Amino acid sequence: MIKKPRVEVCFTPNLFPLYAEDFEVVVVIDVLRATSAICTAFHYGVDKIIPVSSLEEATVYRDKGFHVAAERKGKIVEGFDYGNSPLSYKNDKLKGETLVLTTTNGTKAINIAKDIEHLLIGSLLNLDAISKYLIDLNKSVLLLGSGWENKFCLEDSICAGAISENLLKTNNFESYNDSTIAAKYLYLSAKTNYFGYLKASSHRKRLKKLNLNQDIKYCLTANQTEVIPYREDYYLKKLF
Amino acid sequence: MIKKPRVEVCFTPNLFPLYAEDFEVVVVIDVLRATSAICTAFHYGVDKIIPVSSLEEATVYRDKGFHVAAERKGKIVEGFDYGNSPLSYKNDKLKGETLVLTTTNGTKAINIAKDIEHLLIGSLLNLDAISKYLIDLNKSVLLLGSGWENKFCLEDSICAGAISENLLKTNNFESYNDSTIAAKYLYLSAKTNYFGYLKASSHRKRLKKLNLNQDIKYCLTANQTEVIPYREDYYLKKLF
Repeated sequence: MIKKPRVEVCFTPNLFPLYAEDFEVVVVIDVLRATSAICTAFHYGVDKIIPVSSLEEATVYRDKGFHVAAERKGKIVEGFDYGNSPLSYKNDKLKGETLVLTTTNGTKAINIAKDIEHLLIGSLLNLDAISKYLIDLNKSVLLLGSGWENKFCLEDSICAGAISENLLKTNNFESYNDSTIAAKYLYLSAKTNYFGYLKASSHRKRLKKLNLNQDIKYCLTANQTEVIPYREDYYLKKLF
Repeated sequence: MIKKPRVEVCFTPNLFPLYAEDFEVVVVIDVLRATSAICTAFHYGVDKIIPVSSLEEATVYRDKGFHVAAERKGKIVEGFDYGNSPLSYKNDKLKGETLVLTTTNGTKAINIAKDIEHLLIGSLLNLDAISKYLIDLNKSVLLLGSGWENKFCLEDSICAGAISENLLKTNNFESYNDSTIAAKYLYLSAKTNYFGYLKASSHRKRLKKLNLNQDIKYCLTANQTEVIPYREDYYLKKLF
């Protein structure tokens, strides 16, 4: 019997070494808001995104004249033009341009999985598109949540659960880990009302305090784009 | 306004440093099966349990003439009389005696939280008893799942969710972490049928292969005892 490819969920980047094993594909997820911002920026025509982990690297790029987005703890870092609000990328100002991006959690997760052959960017915004792509790819895939400072994060887990469910229901994938079962259960109970389900979540409260309710609503509305960002060399591009 | 004590969930021992902060109380949970075995042993009259992390320590105790239970990967380690099947403690053979115990996951979690003032042992077996005790104690409490080799484990998270829900519904506790919300949601969707809910869980499958379905059924039946094991010095005793 031919073994099916696996789909598994790893809740946070610090757990990545425990789950990494032999996955050829990793999908990084940071629903609020880094990977939602990345999907949106590509949808509106950005050409390349260079994810960097530190503000120092971001500053070096800025000083060379790049467009640089820098977010820490939900806010744009002083001295930078952009943060990680997806809504700020819903226009053609950066069409054809390269954007450098550093965020509290999301870009770190991208860089942790740097030795993986296929690194993709997932969010609720491109949920069905990325699920379909993964089904066609038919390789074992690890869904990596960005968490919040390495703590478990509800919205990333729900998004990972949604992708897992899409793959598992084809019967062409299997999963062994309890984290995948839990993510799937969380998604199934959240799916009729993400916004209500997440009202108690720590991250939503954090962003609400910063008046980012519009951002949250946008990030929690599934299937707004078909783009699939992937890593090529040290930067991200879009597949379609 | 007086701040309420917190109740939070930490899914696995390796995440403990991220969550530990200023909790005065930690409840260690290993539903399948270490903390269920500990609760059962005390219920049937064991006087003291000495949790040790390594087989080497367990062997030293055995050579001194102690009753020693040693489990690795679900099985009794060769050369020892007991494992961590709770059913093997449902008799009075060890009444008044001291038992030394080492298990794959549970005893490690107990020893990781060793600097905490109040360390208690939780399982579904003593769910309501320990919830009531924690409510009366009225201090911030961290519920620490033992996981499976540091990976997220469904049954421990559900048990932690059940205790969280009991505390939170009094309105005398609060929680900030998404892990607590997720545990609570998982518990709420599992509570009418733990056994069915867990049928896909990795740990249940592992134990089923070892013909331990009776153990699983017993461990997943809530409120079979009022005992609350706690740590005193280097060993565990029961409170009531």
